[in-house]
Amino acid sequence: MIVNGGVVRKEDGAGGRYMSEFLKRIVIPRFDSSAGEIKLSDMDDSSDFDDYVFTTDTYVVDPPVFPGGSIGKLAVCGTSNDIAVMGAEPKIMSLSLIIQEGFEIQLLSRILDEMAFWTKKLDISLITGDTKVVNANIGIAINTSGIGVRNASLERNIDVVREYRRYPWKWVRDCGAGEKEVIIVSGRIAEHGVSVLNTREGISFDLEVESDAYPVWLFLRDVLEVGGITAMKDPTRGGLANALNEISEKSGVGMVIHEERIPMLESVRGFCDVLGLDPLAMANEGKVVMIVVEEMADDVLKSLRKAGQKYAEIIGYTTSEHQEVVLETKIGTRKILPPPMADPVPRVC
Amino acid sequence: MIVNGGVVRKEDGAGGRYMSEFLKRIVIPRFDSSAGEIKLSDMDDSSDFDDYVFTTDTYVVDPPVFPGGSIGKLAVCGTSNDIAVMGAEPKIMSLSLIIQEGFEIQLLSRILDEMAFWTKKLDISLITGDTKVVNANIGIAINTSGIGVRNASLERNIDVVREYRRYPWKWVRDCGAGEKEVIIVSGRIAEHGVSVLNTREGISFDLEVESDAYPVWLFLRDVLEVGGITAMKDPTRGGLANALNEISEKSGVGMVIHEERIPMLESVRGFCDVLGLDPLAMANEGKVVMIVVEEMADDVLKSLRKAGQKYAEIIGYTTSEHQEVVLETKIGTRKILPPPMADPVPRVC
Repeated sequence: MIVNGGVVRKEDGAGGRYMSEFLKRIVIPRFDSSAGEIKLSDMDDSSDFDDYVFTTDTYVVDPPVFPGGSIGKLAVCGTSNDIAVMGAEPKIMSLSLIIQEGFEIQLLSRILDEMAFWTKKLDISLITGDTKVVNANIGIAINTSGIGVRNASLERNIDVVREYRRYPWKWVRDCGAGEKEVIIVSGRIAEHGVSVLNTREGISFDLEVESDAYPVWLFLRDVLEVGGITAMKDPTRGGLANALNEISEKSGVGMVIHEERIPMLESVRGFCDVLGLDPLAMANEGKVVMIVVEEMADDVLKSLRKAGQKYAEIIGYTTSEHQEVVLETKIGTRKILPPPMADPVPRVC
Repeated sequence: MIVNGGVVRKEDGAGGRYMSEFLKRIVIPRFDSSAGEIKLSDMDDSSDFDDYVFTTDTYVVDPPVFPGGSIGKLAVCGTSNDIAVMGAEPKIMSLSLIIQEGFEIQLLSRILDEMAFWTKKLDISLITGDTKVVNANIGIAINTSGIGVRNASLERNIDVVREYRRYPWKWVRDCGAGEKEVIIVSGRIAEHGVSVLNTREGISFDLEVESDAYPVWLFLRDVLEVGGITAMKDPTRGGLANALNEISEKSGVGMVIHEERIPMLESVRGFCDVLGLDPLAMANEGKVVMIVVEEMADDVLKSLRKAGQKYAEIIGYTTSEHQEVVLETKIGTRKILPPPMADPVPRVC
């Protein structure tokens, strides 16, 4: 089998180029398999079997409570979002807790209350679980694995796509983007990463930014009904830069992004400037990047805004003229936007 | 909602009466739901939706490698066993890793190799995953969530049960035992707990005991084909004593267990005696306790032995004469076997 020296580095779990290399070297070759059209090695947001998708995520965010939410809200949003960006409806979830001995029951209760609130909001059945208590300084770690199902909105979306071009997939795939399609982001970026980082000891700017953690299915179900979405991702670890590069690479299309169109709070931009962070690499937990057939782009944008995503914007287009993701400034200068090596903030989700 | 003071104690995650109370007080009331016939509050080994079962488990065993296996083997066996004891065939699995920064790649590789070996052996597709790296002293924690499917052996088993009595369930449930049925354990008990404990720093008796970690589906598929099993559990945290009490309580039947018939290595008995541990409360990771209609018990026992479980034994019977699990000695004296308050060994799975 594969023999490897060395040790695991924090970058190996930080959602950028390093993590991708780590997974391709250490984990995926040992297990690669599929039960439907999506293989483990496709590294899509979920994988599929029969008429279901399946995904898993362990949340280790530090601190466990932050402006706009907690690890509990995150565990429901993050996992249901990985299902929703396949076009599937999140239906079933498991809950596996690792809790540090001595963890406050009151804090645990608050975290679980948020999970209960958001699973109910999504009408998700939480049907199985596990609990371990450890004497390691982990605080709390939560695994939620989730199952999503095919639904009328997804069928409609794919039917609309197929009116315009060949689309061989059963789900909305991150490899599904075609050329001359429109790139939409569903709202303002980088607020989760900035909020969590700002809550950490020793930073705490006077900043009114909350985590954007939110279950995107609550608006995607309407937007899919409009139809024409060929690829989607939720830009978590590694942020918008990572999500765009993944879609570009897997779909074999280049992208042109109009930098000034990327929706972002001024305070988020300022915070990142001061700390030397790239907001395009900061995590989001309630946003979607979608690629849409040109003919449907305006309708999809309208539907996003109607469904409450008022900062949704068309930020660029796909192209076959180059393979890279290119940022274009207002005055027309261009530079390549590479995938981040790693998320600038550790333990962000 | 529920307000709770205090902190989480190690017993709250240790698989006995304390954990059950903790879950019923803190976790289950917030989420209780079902997608099929099994509710979260049933606390069965898996839960169901459509023609599938779903289960989750996070493994935090310390040390991560022990005689007879590793946390990797355990993660495949433990999760597939929770599926198999429902009568379902384990088919799909997710893999979510929490790895401490600085963890040796060589050790990680060995752990993943064992996972790969056993998933292949079981023909399980590992289709989705997640990786987090943390700077907490957790070593490695592995979540595997699994999905199992209905299969011909399960159908046959339930058909046979229904020749003898009413059985309202679609799956083999831990609440399914009837009175005057036969209790079988598939092999020698307590070897996982003893082996892990003996590997810990500062203990290390000169003991030739290996963990019994093993995927029980590999023999259950044949045994179900014989048929007549009304209830099953894999006796992990809290051991045989916990599994018997759970079946007894949920099924509303008492049990009489012939103490001398419980299969156990002499060295395991000696180790437990010296350390003042109850072998009946020690964890197993490759065993099944099953309740079988009387008419089929001998055939099921034969089939277990034929399928390689040569130490399988009939250890007792169910009764409606009392509600407790009662241990009967060779000379006929009786005492109640209560559920353990907690597994005597922490971080055993």
